[in-house]
Amino acid sequence: MEYPSHVLSRAVEQIASLPGIGQKTALRMALHLLRRNSEDILELARAIEALASDIHYCPVCHNICDEGLCDICADKSRDSETICVVEDIRDVIAIENTGLYRGVYHVLGGRISPMEGIGPNDIEIDSLTQRIKNGSVKEIIFALSSTIEGDTTSYYIYRTLPKGSDIKVTSIARGVSIGEEIQYADHITLARSIRNRIPYENTL
Amino acid sequence: MEYPSHVLSRAVEQIASLPGIGQKTALRMALHLLRRNSEDILELARAIEALASDIHYCPVCHNICDEGLCDICADKSRDSETICVVEDIRDVIAIENTGLYRGVYHVLGGRISPMEGIGPNDIEIDSLTQRIKNGSVKEIIFALSSTIEGDTTSYYIYRTLPKGSDIKVTSIARGVSIGEEIQYADHITLARSIRNRIPYENTL
Repeated sequence: MEYPSHVLSRAVEQIASLPGIGQKTALRMALHLLRRNSEDILELARAIEALASDIHYCPVCHNICDEGLCDICADKSRDSETICVVEDIRDVIAIENTGLYRGVYHVLGGRISPMEGIGPNDIEIDSLTQRIKNGSVKEIIFALSSTIEGDTTSYYIYRTLPKGSDIKVTSIARGVSIGEEIQYADHITLARSIRNRIPYENTL
Repeated sequence: MEYPSHVLSRAVEQIASLPGIGQKTALRMALHLLRRNSEDILELARAIEALASDIHYCPVCHNICDEGLCDICADKSRDSETICVVEDIRDVIAIENTGLYRGVYHVLGGRISPMEGIGPNDIEIDSLTQRIKNGSVKEIIFALSSTIEGDTTSYYIYRTLPKGSDIKVTSIARGVSIGEEIQYADHITLARSIRNRIPYENTL
């Protein structure tokens, strides 16, 4: 499509490079921005610019942070002996929002996927192994996505753990969602939730 | 939702201020940007920044442009005696993409809508009247949206035209879309397309 201005056309092209945004939506957004005052537009531009320069990653768990250690690793009240292994920063945000977990995290930054050319060295597995070696880790919780890639990654990490160590290795429970009707649950999930059934008292 | 970094949280908030973007989508976009290299992120930021400072509007037709007159008004090969009146820049883009229209435009920047508090003075009607007074306009084509507001705006402009002038006033045709089946067309459109039927030879 041709636009009447190079500035507009560049903005549309750039906005359309975001995931899930097509040309028409990008144009709608650009024209929407044009109706705002300059200061508001610059605010958006600066917030995006800051993503390029002001983002830091926690050197311990690779979560995003503003500086030094992330808030979670820096929090002395959290149980640093329990590490929850996740793929992505979004997973950390989701688990934190439950308000239930008091341990720390390890963000892999992806999962092993030979199809996409992502091997064990492309994600933060080495630093996890190092963390386990150096620290006094008591439990590793796998909270990876329930896919072949996620399962492969969990298994790979499981195999790299020091042999004969007494680290407890667990995986988050999979099963029928709260509020979901049994008849609509997919059969793999349902089968797994039957196999991993728990004492009824635990649900009370 | 709480995010592990102020920079991320500001970016999410700003991106979520765009139309049709919620918090989760904004987060996905921000994290997607973080996976790009800095130069790419800055490119997006600069393209948005330019919307605040480098956008100009054509002083004649109020279309968006880079400088001076817009490409359409500046194009001597176009018929400046035919003015197509539209609400929005997107309408200009849509009509230009047909490749059929050789006249010029007048972008109102909205439509009269008492419900939204938009009166005739809030859109570019005066400058259109002035254009008609000053220039040698032969035809005005109304291409406004087919709503009460669009129709009101067309009618208001029609009434402001100098009385007794020999300017031809037309409206784009409304009717059943090309490729649309008659049985699925809404009855108002169908009624209008029957009332405004055209000689068959014209469709050949």
